[in-house]
Amino acid sequence: MRIESPRYTERFGSVRINDVQEVLELDSGRAKELPLEENIAVLKIEEDTIKDFEEKMAIVIPTRDEKLKLFEGVISGVPHECLIIVVSNSERKRVDRFKMEKDTLSQFCHFTRRKALIIHQKDPILAQAMPEAGYTDLLGEDGLVRDGKAEGMMIAMLIAMMAKKEYVGFIDADNYFPGSVWEYVRCYAAGFSIAKSPYAMVRILWRYKPKISAGMFFKKWGRVSEITNRCMNSLISSKTGFETEIIKTGNAGEHAMSLRLAEILPYASGYAVEPQELVSIFEGFGGVLPLAHQTAAKHGVEVFQLETRNPHLHEERGSEHLQEMLLPGLGSIYHSRLCAAETRELILNELIQQNALKPGEKPPKPQLSYLPKKANLQKFTEDMEEYLMGLNSETGH
Amino acid sequence: MRIESPRYTERFGSVRINDVQEVLELDSGRAKELPLEENIAVLKIEEDTIKDFEEKMAIVIPTRDEKLKLFEGVISGVPHECLIIVVSNSERKRVDRFKMEKDTLSQFCHFTRRKALIIHQKDPILAQAMPEAGYTDLLGEDGLVRDGKAEGMMIAMLIAMMAKKEYVGFIDADNYFPGSVWEYVRCYAAGFSIAKSPYAMVRILWRYKPKISAGMFFKKWGRVSEITNRCMNSLISSKTGFETEIIKTGNAGEHAMSLRLAEILPYASGYAVEPQELVSIFEGFGGVLPLAHQTAAKHGVEVFQLETRNPHLHEERGSEHLQEMLLPGLGSIYHSRLCAAETRELILNELIQQNALKPGEKPPKPQLSYLPKKANLQKFTEDMEEYLMGLNSETGH
Repeated sequence: MRIESPRYTERFGSVRINDVQEVLELDSGRAKELPLEENIAVLKIEEDTIKDFEEKMAIVIPTRDEKLKLFEGVISGVPHECLIIVVSNSERKRVDRFKMEKDTLSQFCHFTRRKALIIHQKDPILAQAMPEAGYTDLLGEDGLVRDGKAEGMMIAMLIAMMAKKEYVGFIDADNYFPGSVWEYVRCYAAGFSIAKSPYAMVRILWRYKPKISAGMFFKKWGRVSEITNRCMNSLISSKTGFETEIIKTGNAGEHAMSLRLAEILPYASGYAVEPQELVSIFEGFGGVLPLAHQTAAKHGVEVFQLETRNPHLHEERGSEHLQEMLLPGLGSIYHSRLCAAETRELILNELIQQNALKPGEKPPKPQLSYLPKKANLQKFTEDMEEYLMGLNSETGH
Repeated sequence: MRIESPRYTERFGSVRINDVQEVLELDSGRAKELPLEENIAVLKIEEDTIKDFEEKMAIVIPTRDEKLKLFEGVISGVPHECLIIVVSNSERKRVDRFKMEKDTLSQFCHFTRRKALIIHQKDPILAQAMPEAGYTDLLGEDGLVRDGKAEGMMIAMLIAMMAKKEYVGFIDADNYFPGSVWEYVRCYAAGFSIAKSPYAMVRILWRYKPKISAGMFFKKWGRVSEITNRCMNSLISSKTGFETEIIKTGNAGEHAMSLRLAEILPYASGYAVEPQELVSIFEGFGGVLPLAHQTAAKHGVEVFQLETRNPHLHEERGSEHLQEMLLPGLGSIYHSRLCAAETRELILNELIQQNALKPGEKPPKPQLSYLPKKANLQKFTEDMEEYLMGLNSETGH
C-alpha cells in the first residue's frame, strides 16, 4: 500500500506525535525488482513488509451482543496472518449468544484454515486466573471480570502477550464493511513498519463517517471527536508553549500498539479508555512528570495517525449519546496531572455548553488500572493456556 | 483470498454457468511453502496468482458527472497491477468536469507511480478513428460517439485490446467504498484463475445492498434483479427442459470478461447491456441456434458468479426508476431468438404488474452493436495510440 510520508512531527518530551498520514493506494501490487525512485512525499509499504507485521499482530475484537452477520463480516476482513482474539461479553443465559459467536468463528476458521481465540469476559476460569497472576484490578464485587470494553481490551492484551505477539490492534465488531477492517489492519502494519521505536501506537482517522439521515452526508468530524481533540491539544499546548492541532484521533476506537508500549500503560474504563491512552503517554513520557519507563523514554514513544481510504460505516446505537461519550474522555484530560488551569476551564465550558455538566460540577475522574506488565504472565499462561486451547479446539487450535 | 469451490455447474450447450461462489476471506496471507490440504469446498487463490491476472487486466470506469470524491475513492481501490481506463461522458462546457477528472487521475498516478488512461466519450479524434477502423456503430447523427454507458464500455474494450490486455473488468464510479472496488477486482482475478476456458466471464453478486431509509436495511435482492433473473432463468429452462435458478447476476454492472470473449459478443445500449451479454452468450453458444464462434464453442464459454464479502453502497440516483431499469433488460430477453412463448408471457405479465408496460404493448427491442472484433484494431491503434498517450502524458504515460 502507499501512504503519505509523515510531513510533520510534534515532539512532547520523548513522545513523537506524527501528523495525519493519508492512505493513497490500498494495494500497491508486487515489489518491483528494482526499487523505483519514490516521490519524497510517499511511502510504499511492500506486501511482504505488511505481512511480516501482520504475523506478529493480534487483532482484538471486543463484542457484546453484536449482530452475528456483522461479526462474521468483521472477522472475514482480518488478514490471514493475524491472530484473531475475540473477547465477548454477550448474553449467555436466555440465549447463548456467546456460543453462536464461537460457532461462527469456528466455522470461519475451519474453512479458512486459520487460528483464532475466543473467550467470554465473565469466564470463571479467567476470573480465577487473574488474582493468581496477581492482577485483581479488573475484577468486580462478584469476583468476575467487570463489564466494559476497556476490561475486554485488557484481557485480550494479556492473551496476546501469552501468545507471544508483538503488536495488538483493536477493531470494533459493529463495522459494516469487511474491506474497511482489512484496511485498518494494513494501516496498523504500515505504521509499525515505519516506526523507529519499539514503543509505538497507530490510531485510525476515518476519511468520512457517513451519517444516514435523509440520504447520506459524509461527515468528517463527529462532535465528540472535535471537542476531545481540541481539549487534548490544549493540554499539549499549555506545556510546550506552542499552540497545536496535532491530535486528530483522541477518541480513535480503531487503534493498535506494540505490546511493549501496551504493557506499560495504565488504562481507564469505559469511553475514557482511548483518550486516556494518550494522556498516559503524555504523563509518562512528556518529560514534565517523572518518566514512567526508562527504556521506553530512551527509545521514545511514537504515535501515528493514519487516515483511511474507506469511510467508516457502523451500526448506530441509540445509547451512544453525545454526553455519555464526551464526559469520560474529557474527564481523563481534566484529571491529568498535566492539565493546566486554562485547559480545565476549556473542558468545563465545553461540557456545560453540551449540557453534559451543570455549572459547579466536575467531570468524573477515570479509574486507572494497573499496568498489564504487573500481571505475572507466566502464572497467567500456566493457568489459562491449556484451558484456552481446549475452549478453542475448533477454532484452529 | 479464499472462495467457495463451484459446487454446481449448469450446462447450456457449450456454456457453463457456475452457481454462486461466496468469498470467504479477503486476504489469505502468504503462500505457504508446503501447500496445506485444503477443504474440498474451498479454493485458496494465492496472491501471486491474483496479481498475475491483475497484470493482464484493464479496469474500466465509465463515469458521467460523478462526484470527484467518489471517483477518487474508486480509483484508489483498484489494485496497482491493473491498467485503469476511464471513459468519461462528463460535462465540458459550463464547467470542464472532464478536466477535473483528468487532473484527479493524474495526481493519483503521480503519487502512486502507476498508469491510467482517460478519454472523453465525445472526443472528436476518437469519433474520427472509429469509421477509419470500419466501426461506425457507436456514432450518432452528429458524428460523435453516442451517449450511454454501454457505448463508453465498448470504447474502453477497444482501448483495452489496443493496450494488449487479456481481461477487461467494469466498475461503476459511484461506489462509496474503495475497499469494495478492491474486492471486485480480486473476484474477477479469482474467477479467471479457475476458468478452464479462455472465453470466460465473471459477474459480481453483492452480499447486501443497503437501503438507506430510516436506518439501514440490508437488502439482498433488488426488485429489478429479482425479476430479470427470473425471466432469464425461464429462458434457459424452456430450452433445457429443467427448471433452474442458476442465474443470480442478470443485471450485474460489476463484471469482467476475457477479451477473447468480449470481442466476439454484440452489445445492447443502455440498461440492457448487462443482461444482453448473457443473452448473446446463450444465443451464440447454447447450441440451439447456429454457433457464433467455432473456437469459443470448442473451449466452451464459462460464466462465474462471485458473491462479495463487502456490501454494495453506492450513490442513489433519483432517476433510476424501477421501470426505467427493468424495461430494457427484459426487452433483451423478450426479443431473443431463444425466447419461448411462456417466457414472453412471463415478461409481459411482470412488466404490466410493475406498471412498466400497458396491456398490448411490447418491451423495446435492443439495438445490437457489431462485435468489437469487427473493428480494424491495427488501424484504430495507428490513429489512437499516439493521441491517447499525449492526452495522458501526466497519468504515467
